[in-house]
Amino acid sequence: MIRADGRAPDELRDIRFERGWLDHAEGSVLVSFGRTRVLCAASLTDSVPSWRKGSGLGWVTAEYEMLPRSTNTRNARESRKGKVGGRTHEISRLIGRSLRAAVDLERLGENSIVIDCDVLQADGGTRTAAITGAWVALADAVDYGRRRGIIPAAHEPLVDSIAAISVGIVGGQPVLDLPYDEDSTAETDMNVVMTGSGRFVEVQGTAEGVPFDRGELGALLDLAEKGCARLTELQKAAREEDA
Amino acid sequence: MIRADGRAPDELRDIRFERGWLDHAEGSVLVSFGRTRVLCAASLTDSVPSWRKGSGLGWVTAEYEMLPRSTNTRNARESRKGKVGGRTHEISRLIGRSLRAAVDLERLGENSIVIDCDVLQADGGTRTAAITGAWVALADAVDYGRRRGIIPAAHEPLVDSIAAISVGIVGGQPVLDLPYDEDSTAETDMNVVMTGSGRFVEVQGTAEGVPFDRGELGALLDLAEKGCARLTELQKAAREEDA
Amino acid sequence: MIRADGRAPDELRDIRFERGWLDHAEGSVLVSFGRTRVLCAASLTDSVPSWRKGSGLGWVTAEYEMLPRSTNTRNARESRKGKVGGRTHEISRLIGRSLRAAVDLERLGENSIVIDCDVLQADGGTRTAAITGAWVALADAVDYGRRRGIIPAAHEPLVDSIAAISVGIVGGQPVLDLPYDEDSTAETDMNVVMTGSGRFVEVQGTAEGVPFDRGELGALLDLAEKGCARLTELQKAAREEDA
Amino acid sequence: MIRADGRAPDELRDIRFERGWLDHAEGSVLVSFGRTRVLCAASLTDSVPSWRKGSGLGWVTAEYEMLPRSTNTRNARESRKGKVGGRTHEISRLIGRSLRAAVDLERLGENSIVIDCDVLQADGGTRTAAITGAWVALADAVDYGRRRGIIPAAHEPLVDSIAAISVGIVGGQPVLDLPYDEDSTAETDMNVVMTGSGRFVEVQGTAEGVPFDRGELGALLDLAEKGCARLTELQKAAREEDA
Amino acid sequence: MIRADGRAPDELRDIRFERGWLDHAEGSVLVSFGRTRVLCAASLTDSVPSWRKGSGLGWVTAEYEMLPRSTNTRNARESRKGKVGGRTHEISRLIGRSLRAAVDLERLGENSIVIDCDVLQADGGTRTAAITGAWVALADAVDYGRRRGIIPAAHEPLVDSIAAISVGIVGGQPVLDLPYDEDSTAETDMNVVMTGSGRFVEVQGTAEGVPFDRGELGALLDLAEKGCARLTELQKAAREEDA
Amino acid sequence: MIRADGRAPDELRDIRFERGWLDHAEGSVLVSFGRTRVLCAASLTDSVPSWRKGSGLGWVTAEYEMLPRSTNTRNARESRKGKVGGRTHEISRLIGRSLRAAVDLERLGENSIVIDCDVLQADGGTRTAAITGAWVALADAVDYGRRRGIIPAAHEPLVDSIAAISVGIVGGQPVLDLPYDEDSTAETDMNVVMTGSGRFVEVQGTAEGVPFDRGELGALLDLAEKGCARLTELQKAAREEDA
Repeated sequence: MIRADGRAPDELRDIRFERGWLDHAEGSVLVSFGRTRVLCAASLTDSVPSWRKGSGLGWVTAEYEMLPRSTNTRNARESRKGKVGGRTHEISRLIGRSLRAAVDLERLGENSIVIDCDVLQADGGTRTAAITGAWVALADAVDYGRRRGIIPAAHEPLVDSIAAISVGIVGGQPVLDLPYDEDSTAETDMNVVMTGSGRFVEVQGTAEGVPFDRGELGALLDLAEKGCARLTELQKAAREEDA
Repeated sequence: MIRADGRAPDELRDIRFERGWLDHAEGSVLVSFGRTRVLCAASLTDSVPSWRKGSGLGWVTAEYEMLPRSTNTRNARESRKGKVGGRTHEISRLIGRSLRAAVDLERLGENSIVIDCDVLQADGGTRTAAITGAWVALADAVDYGRRRGIIPAAHEPLVDSIAAISVGIVGGQPVLDLPYDEDSTAETDMNVVMTGSGRFVEVQGTAEGVPFDRGELGALLDLAEKGCARLTELQKAAREEDA
Repeated sequence: MIRADGRAPDELRDIRFERGWLDHAEGSVLVSFGRTRVLCAASLTDSVPSWRKGSGLGWVTAEYEMLPRSTNTRNARESRKGKVGGRTHEISRLIGRSLRAAVDLERLGENSIVIDCDVLQADGGTRTAAITGAWVALADAVDYGRRRGIIPAAHEPLVDSIAAISVGIVGGQPVLDLPYDEDSTAETDMNVVMTGSGRFVEVQGTAEGVPFDRGELGALLDLAEKGCARLTELQKAAREEDA
Repeated sequence: MIRADGRAPDELRDIRFERGWLDHAEGSVLVSFGRTRVLCAASLTDSVPSWRKGSGLGWVTAEYEMLPRSTNTRNARESRKGKVGGRTHEISRLIGRSLRAAVDLERLGENSIVIDCDVLQADGGTRTAAITGAWVALADAVDYGRRRGIIPAAHEPLVDSIAAISVGIVGGQPVLDLPYDEDSTAETDMNVVMTGSGRFVEVQGTAEGVPFDRGELGALLDLAEKGCARLTELQKAAREEDA
Repeated sequence: MIRADGRAPDELRDIRFERGWLDHAEGSVLVSFGRTRVLCAASLTDSVPSWRKGSGLGWVTAEYEMLPRSTNTRNARESRKGKVGGRTHEISRLIGRSLRAAVDLERLGENSIVIDCDVLQADGGTRTAAITGAWVALADAVDYGRRRGIIPAAHEPLVDSIAAISVGIVGGQPVLDLPYDEDSTAETDMNVVMTGSGRFVEVQGTAEGVPFDRGELGALLDLAEKGCARLTELQKAAREEDA
Repeated sequence: MIRADGRAPDELRDIRFERGWLDHAEGSVLVSFGRTRVLCAASLTDSVPSWRKGSGLGWVTAEYEMLPRSTNTRNARESRKGKVGGRTHEISRLIGRSLRAAVDLERLGENSIVIDCDVLQADGGTRTAAITGAWVALADAVDYGRRRGIIPAAHEPLVDSIAAISVGIVGGQPVLDLPYDEDSTAETDMNVVMTGSGRFVEVQGTAEGVPFDRGELGALLDLAEKGCARLTELQKAAREEDA
């Protein structure tokens, strides 16, 4: 089977990390998964939320939002509607939780890192692109903090890397990294977050059309493992370049 | 291994469905998973949201909320805070999506069913109890609608039943149906929604502590399949009683 | 005159107090006035709001809310509408004010008790049921606090009991404890809050249809005194049982 | 007993109605009860809210608000806080309900009148001044509408007049029309709304300190009847002047 | 050219300052620019916002709002809409900024003055009337604070006076102090804020219809200088009277 | 005088227009004024807001917002705060008003164009960059609409171009196009919006420190005229390239 964009079922879209895209942020990356483009900005501050003060532990969190015209037709701004939608909250929480799985919060000291993930253009997989890019921005911010002595330099707080990819069943066929056109017709859609060492952090599978069985679940997990392994290599390569 | 409450690792808590708990709702059930108690009320109306008008299709959605003192210490009401939290939105969306997986919306006709799931008491597993109870309330509301001729009586719109259970790894051991004390110490926590026919609707696994591997994922899915099968039997039994 | 539900004009509906309905709350009661059912949960905390700190005085307040399907047709949640309606605020304030009339806040010490009154099912008289039940939950929470030494045990902070009932003129006849069907057709509607010792805390009378005169007002107050006296006996009996 | 401001217990403060205070409103009055000053503006529109369309009935409602520096120390604006407080809602509802008791909504035709009651200066009794002034503004707006043919001229929609006064027990003595200093120390506080023909529309009595008995309640109602009768005369006189 | 209201192009409307209009505020003025009437109330408190604590500097800010029926047809209250509109924010900020230009915040000490500008009636030029009146209320509040020893008496914190006027091009003719009818048809509209010593604090010109050139801009500034000079004289005269 | 970044007083920063930066929007440009970068996306829809229906006129509006980490330190998102700040509203309104000055809304037909201006990085002059870039995105969207026959092709609705620049007095010296470091220390700050034909649309001057006189105002306008003329050339050049 050849997909509409010419990719093999187990092939990622063109993945790019443009590090240091912003001048002010302690870490930043413009990540692209094909036409999906997410600007990830990591902000480091030398304090923690009040409920965490005195714990000796740091904090990592994330906020995800889509620009109004990131999508095919314009969506109203959540700031103007006066409330943040359920989907936005859900993805923000997912990104934060995923990143924290790879951070030793004790080694971070009582510092906070907020990763803003703003979708400039959406073509499917915005949450997985956001997680994958956010980890790169986070790593750059941690490096910045350790160089400046804000974060204790003795021990690396990042105990692993984090990448995420979508998989789904489209026309009966398991495929990797779905663009919007595939995503909107998928029978089953799964987002998988994994560590660089190959373990699972999040598995979120949803039957959009027909419920799925154990065999299909296994095939999707196989694809996701393959995709995340490749993303881990690309993150590593991006981090080795000068920002 | 014996758990703190004396259950075997693959044993559900005491599950109860009190149908017809409310006088006004078209379907209602007070569902208990041990000390977790959720009041599920299904409201049937003979219209659909405006974006769906003229489609010939019905609509099923859900709203989840916790009473302020359902928990061990009191939480502020979301209505007073002026905004609904991310977790509340996320679970509401999950319940609605899960139920729709078992409904033929064309057979429902242009009617809507909203299932309100209000947690009266929380002791872990509120979302899985809510889904499992909501399906019973939904089924009662569909029966009501068909008897009254609101929903076309010719074909049953409920194509399957839906149940959900939590599984997790606690102290290295996969366990079924976690109460709060287990949930708060679990390394990995997974919520699984299945059809009565044994297929998956949602799989949401999260590494709270250490990431998990394919083997652990498999063990958790085995437990979940067992738990959902038992819940399906209990739903069936409850539905056969007079409300 | 015999009323639609067979009661005499001065007869209460079936009144029930199910104490200890919740496991977490320091005091709780599921109160029923006929089909009207309100879950009252008292939460005790050993601090007071910031504006009261250092005063040596405690604080008692209440929050009232209706579940969306407590009523005959579903109402939108106030949390989703993003604002709490005027009626909800008004009743919450009434409950808190009524309860404080029977509490010696100095004897309570710098502790707070919040009573959540959530209407599970509404059939008229939700505010009076809420006040009457809330006092029972409050009393149980005070006992709990004194047993645990949170509230000074030396002196009882509850200086009286509090009960409330609705009265109204329906078809020209003064009647006690109106269900929804009577309430919606009443010419005049009055809610009366009294102490166990027979004094008035709140008198709120409203001419829904035609304004009323001093004679009618007197007849309604007579009925209310009788109803509150009976509720006081029932509260006393409920408090003497084991929760 | 002589009160702090020299009045007898049954004496009103200096009451003034400045009709036509605004150029745009269909009816307006700046009402003063001593230092309490409320600007009442009646806006007439030839339509009704959507839920009332086609009923043949009109609608009368009110909105009450206090300017931030109407009080002794400044209060934050409700618009800036992003929500309207419970007290504001409660009083707005009370004013609207009171006025509607004297309006034949069928004779009003499908027209709406909104009365805005903005407290420019507060010294106790703002709600009673608002109701009393609002009725004058309402009457002027009805006249305006009948002269212009917006409201059918054949039958007067105002079937009675409406006035309101506060009464209370201060230092054991029942007194009429309490300024802030008396109000804040009153044991019992009651607001009474009456028709010009001497019947009751609203009776709202609250024991701020000690609960009250039937005798005290009677004494307060006597005072209120006297005060409202005098206000009715003053309204009549004001309405007979040229605006 | 004679204007609709008979004024010459460079003539102000009837300007009035009624000082001490409120009893509670430390400074207050009811300012009228023709039919435009704004109630300005200055509230002095002996503290500053938290972000300014310890700076030794005071703070002056303003809040502007229109009563719902200040305008020709009624506008919904911003408090009920749950959000403050852009125009309201913009004018509030303008007033505060303008006033601060004439205050030595160090001499004010760590005290705050908030000027509430509530438009009771609007007929064009509400923001310029508000600024001009607000300065009078501010000056009275500063006097009050110095007399009471709240503000250090040694040095006058008001280093200049502030007045504001609107100018515009109507039918090709530059005119001063536009009422609503002229404002709504102006090709160009400019608000100018000046000090008593004749320097500019704010110049805000907007081409409502056709863009304007340097010559027109000059003619408008000439008019504004003349108008502000006259307002400065009137402010001085008002301040010399007993409040 | 040489400025900190080496520019002459009347020299613009490096100005860049990257047209077609987004795939979905009908017109888009990433505009840079030095390090200030604003993403402008124009969304064309073939309808107008309800208050404009049937008028035969189109509508052009804008929304401005800053990403949380566009600035030197992170700012909370307005969507999370639940309200849009005054500055954001003010600038959104300014952009929309400026653009409309150059559009013949009748020739646009009953179509709407919304320009979203999202500040990706802020270093002073974000509103002027937004206006200047927004006009380019608007022009591209108009071309798109005319090519597709959505907007009548017969007559060009854009009757002029629009550009904007900041000018200010820094250390006594009038300078053009202020970056953040200059802006935060300027005595006077002015934003000027002009048409390509050299007329003024908006002039907004503010004395941040000391009030300014007519001479200084003239010098600033001279600089602004020069800057806007240069921006007009650059817009023209950008529009002549292939997007």
